[in-house]
Amino acid sequence: MKMILPIFFIFSLLSSSSFALVQDFCVADLKAADGPAGYPCKKTVTVNDFVYSGLAGPGKIIPLIKAAVTPAFVDQFPGVNGLGLSMARLDLEAGGVVPMHTHPAASEALIVVTGTLCAGFISSSDNKVYFKTLNKGDIMIFPQGLLHFQINSGGGSALAFVSFSSPRPGLQITDFALFANDLPSELVEKTTFLDDATVKKLKAVLGGKN
Amino acid sequence: MKMILPIFFIFSLLSSSSFALVQDFCVADLKAADGPAGYPCKKTVTVNDFVYSGLAGPGKIIPLIKAAVTPAFVDQFPGVNGLGLSMARLDLEAGGVVPMHTHPAASEALIVVTGTLCAGFISSSDNKVYFKTLNKGDIMIFPQGLLHFQINSGGGSALAFVSFSSPRPGLQITDFALFANDLPSELVEKTTFLDDATVKKLKAVLGGKN
Amino acid sequence: MKMILPIFFIFSLLSSSSFALVQDFCVADLKAADGPAGYPCKKTVTVNDFVYSGLAGPGKIIPLIKAAVTPAFVDQFPGVNGLGLSMARLDLEAGGVVPMHTHPAASEALIVVTGTLCAGFISSSDNKVYFKTLNKGDIMIFPQGLLHFQINSGGGSALAFVSFSSPRPGLQITDFALFANDLPSELVEKTTFLDDATVKKLKAVLGGKN
Amino acid sequence: MKMILPIFFIFSLLSSSSFALVQDFCVADLKAADGPAGYPCKKTVTVNDFVYSGLAGPGKIIPLIKAAVTPAFVDQFPGVNGLGLSMARLDLEAGGVVPMHTHPAASEALIVVTGTLCAGFISSSDNKVYFKTLNKGDIMIFPQGLLHFQINSGGGSALAFVSFSSPRPGLQITDFALFANDLPSELVEKTTFLDDATVKKLKAVLGGKN
Amino acid sequence: MKMILPIFFIFSLLSSSSFALVQDFCVADLKAADGPAGYPCKKTVTVNDFVYSGLAGPGKIIPLIKAAVTPAFVDQFPGVNGLGLSMARLDLEAGGVVPMHTHPAASEALIVVTGTLCAGFISSSDNKVYFKTLNKGDIMIFPQGLLHFQINSGGGSALAFVSFSSPRPGLQITDFALFANDLPSELVEKTTFLDDATVKKLKAVLGGKN
Amino acid sequence: MKMILPIFFIFSLLSSSSFALVQDFCVADLKAADGPAGYPCKKTVTVNDFVYSGLAGPGKIIPLIKAAVTPAFVDQFPGVNGLGLSMARLDLEAGGVVPMHTHPAASEALIVVTGTLCAGFISSSDNKVYFKTLNKGDIMIFPQGLLHFQINSGGGSALAFVSFSSPRPGLQITDFALFANDLPSELVEKTTFLDDATVKKLKAVLGGKN
Repeated sequence: MKMILPIFFIFSLLSSSSFALVQDFCVADLKAADGPAGYPCKKTVTVNDFVYSGLAGPGKIIPLIKAAVTPAFVDQFPGVNGLGLSMARLDLEAGGVVPMHTHPAASEALIVVTGTLCAGFISSSDNKVYFKTLNKGDIMIFPQGLLHFQINSGGGSALAFVSFSSPRPGLQITDFALFANDLPSELVEKTTFLDDATVKKLKAVLGGKN
Repeated sequence: MKMILPIFFIFSLLSSSSFALVQDFCVADLKAADGPAGYPCKKTVTVNDFVYSGLAGPGKIIPLIKAAVTPAFVDQFPGVNGLGLSMARLDLEAGGVVPMHTHPAASEALIVVTGTLCAGFISSSDNKVYFKTLNKGDIMIFPQGLLHFQINSGGGSALAFVSFSSPRPGLQITDFALFANDLPSELVEKTTFLDDATVKKLKAVLGGKN
Repeated sequence: MKMILPIFFIFSLLSSSSFALVQDFCVADLKAADGPAGYPCKKTVTVNDFVYSGLAGPGKIIPLIKAAVTPAFVDQFPGVNGLGLSMARLDLEAGGVVPMHTHPAASEALIVVTGTLCAGFISSSDNKVYFKTLNKGDIMIFPQGLLHFQINSGGGSALAFVSFSSPRPGLQITDFALFANDLPSELVEKTTFLDDATVKKLKAVLGGKN
Repeated sequence: MKMILPIFFIFSLLSSSSFALVQDFCVADLKAADGPAGYPCKKTVTVNDFVYSGLAGPGKIIPLIKAAVTPAFVDQFPGVNGLGLSMARLDLEAGGVVPMHTHPAASEALIVVTGTLCAGFISSSDNKVYFKTLNKGDIMIFPQGLLHFQINSGGGSALAFVSFSSPRPGLQITDFALFANDLPSELVEKTTFLDDATVKKLKAVLGGKN
Repeated sequence: MKMILPIFFIFSLLSSSSFALVQDFCVADLKAADGPAGYPCKKTVTVNDFVYSGLAGPGKIIPLIKAAVTPAFVDQFPGVNGLGLSMARLDLEAGGVVPMHTHPAASEALIVVTGTLCAGFISSSDNKVYFKTLNKGDIMIFPQGLLHFQINSGGGSALAFVSFSSPRPGLQITDFALFANDLPSELVEKTTFLDDATVKKLKAVLGGKN
Repeated sequence: MKMILPIFFIFSLLSSSSFALVQDFCVADLKAADGPAGYPCKKTVTVNDFVYSGLAGPGKIIPLIKAAVTPAFVDQFPGVNGLGLSMARLDLEAGGVVPMHTHPAASEALIVVTGTLCAGFISSSDNKVYFKTLNKGDIMIFPQGLLHFQINSGGGSALAFVSFSSPRPGLQITDFALFANDLPSELVEKTTFLDDATVKKLKAVLGGKN
């Protein structure tokens, strides 16, 4: 091609484009009602919709677990809407733990940035446990919906970043699900085999009632 | 159309078909290795591959829970392979319970055929409990991956059929996952806030070690 | 963990949660416009959104077929929105039949609760018929989009529950599609090989015109 | 960048690539067993795996319908395996018709290349008919699983190409499904409201038995 | 069945239908905000929503490439919303070319209607080129997201229709992406290895700045 | 529950389990042929199948770009098979760049661990550029299939981890796709508007022919 095309050719080229409305992404309009596939798309976007700095600093440590889980899910980071992934940051002080939990809607990949973790998950079929000590740079995968945990097994603090296969993976911490609500103690006991004293004690710690 | 076409027209019609190899279903060949989307397809099938009688009678009651969960997942009923659903049968004696559990890979719909159940699930976001008494003919939906339970709350036995949105929904009973394996008690305690005596007691009941 | 945490720890724990907006389900807001993945989510839900009693009693029998098909699809049972499954109830009087039909958007699993059915489907590739007598407790799977039927082949009435792999499986009864509308008889004849008298007779029975 | 890099830099660049095994496509190995997501991938491919000439000429006309449907589904054109689309060619002589049929597993887009068609589909919800005359260059969409038809409504022959949203859309021609097999006439009659004479006549034409 | 049913049976049949709200399609309401799965559905539709004539005539030729790409994506043809496919028309004058481009969200199937094309794509793993001369009636598949091109390699004009595995496949023409915007020349050079003169020349031709 | 169940109850509980074959994950058997949904599952797995240390150290720097891209895709890390995500590590020396490229099969989320990057992507619809300087802890999302780049814009080296929404995202570096193969220079020129000298120079640098 010789680079001598008159400029008016260019204008006709650009104005004849029919593709202007095709969208490559769908930044969440968080003020609209969401649906099964996510939120409706924001009309006007800038690069800032695709960048999130909320994981740059440590999260607020929860004293009970000496750890913080800071999400960058669609409700925090609207740019991931419809794109099939999201992230979170784990900060664990010495002795910290992310308690047994599941993500109902996503698999998770974890990478250790600082420190040492003992992490594992439990299969549903045969209740088999897969756990291992992870060092800096190690990655571990946690399959969707399975119970798993992360424990700071080193002497200092630990930092890890996790990615999820969904913009809204969900997080169900088993203890919070069982004890931090008004599910009657009798039903908790019936469905977990725990005795009444244990259930009442944990309800007291975690703010549950009944 | 006049019904007077010579029979040789028919043969040319049938033999010219090019669609013979297109498949409408994929009955699992359970002897082959499965993959992320399910099992490879069996070559030759009959109507019996699409019918399953394994839910016709009551399942074998587990004394601990006075209940039986009988699955018709792809590994029991190969005809559901690749078709996006499966079933199971719940038998609950008086006082029976299906303990707190999740299905990592499917949502569930339950229909009560006999008796009365108290059933519920817990949301992940805010640990809110949704539970209700279900009578004959009532259906309840349990969203994917969330902790849920069913208790026989009537005086007699109860029967329910459940359907899943996947040929292999999985079933993770929380107590079995925590106590019926060799996950060291120390790790169970660290990740569940349960005390050592409780963990050791439940490990003893459920056959766990360490 | 020692169970002696001051209560204010609990409050900081709960208030530091960032997950409040993550959703585990999406009960349909039927008043909003739906989309390819379903309806937008209702803002406020209770357990009643997840329970449906509309299948508890027999449906209204259609005299022509001596049967009733009562759906619990998303438009009747908004709780299934986005969850990948739905249900329906089949009541068949003696001699009743669910005529040849398809579900364009879902596979189906049927379980017989009362009576005896003769049920079958036809594959698309080679027009092969798979049919069998089903007794109480038997389940049968009908792959997505294929023509199938259920006939009460016992002496009394029959009851079955069916599940679908979609919240909106659709239901296209072949005879209704061909004869219960204003598709000109000439086009029906041309595309089905039926003669004019037959088409006109069925249009008269089923309320069609032209 | 200055273009003066020694050639050995290039070699180290290429040999350090770790991406050699990542695959962009999955040409079907038709000799292997397929699965729910398609066939396993062929190891070695050439450009000829991605090109198909089987639609270049007219298909073999079926006298009964004066039309030919020539598929380029995965079993004819292995290159579409796993890619979510396939094609077919429709040849219609004067008076030709593609009879009432469904594609259980795909939506269809048709484009008229030669001639004039009358094409339509029937919705499942309300049995509403959507049909129109299509001229050269017109495209029409037929939603997944719905009954539809194409009739040559011009004086000469007609040619159309159709695309599907699946590598194996399936094709169920209603008349062939009902009459070209061994489904007992009694069951056909019971499930279609057709009388015995009509069923027997069509079975005779289409090669059915019983 | 005897065809003597009183007409009031028919009315009860029709009015007892519970399926009126189940939808088989979801024609895009282009005035509403779209979401990750597409646009909300239009309330009222006619057959014209499923037919599109915008590909019936040649597109407007872009002088620079002596070719026209005319889309029938969801924004031009709302009937494809949610149905998993769309189409486009390619017109190439003698010497015309559809420059190196990708469709980020779909695979493509092309069929040659008139003329001769040289078409090809490049795999991502090993940068291998698959290209071939295509004649009338040949189809070629271009896997999702891979760079590909079409050149009129015959003496006259050429016409092809293409189908996509998504209602909104997207179209990213590499040269337009690199040179028809305000991405600073320095960044283009740094990320493409092109020299400054080349970048500035192409920016001038294609209307880019900086 | 009273914890006094005889031990033989436990055994009957465990042996009556019917769920032993249900799988929660599908570690790739890399020796088997893969398919559209991934590889068949390995029969026996250990925790080491879910942990990968290949990203723990810096990748091998490619002199041309002063950067290394080290993948943990399914072919390196078989544990991600079927789980919908994967990872990679980016090492950029001072002045390093990951050149303009796409991932045909996944969206990407990047998190900066060390240093400062200038990163951006280009939309397909309107060729709009979204780019920004990213500091430690910032995350940026790159929508599927769109051209994007990362440049080390700080003085020292930089480290980032990236996650993908697929176990095999693919990586197509535009320059390698255009110049590191045997695509004839004439075709490159025709489809990119680059002049012959530029194409030949880049082919020489990148190892291309013809």
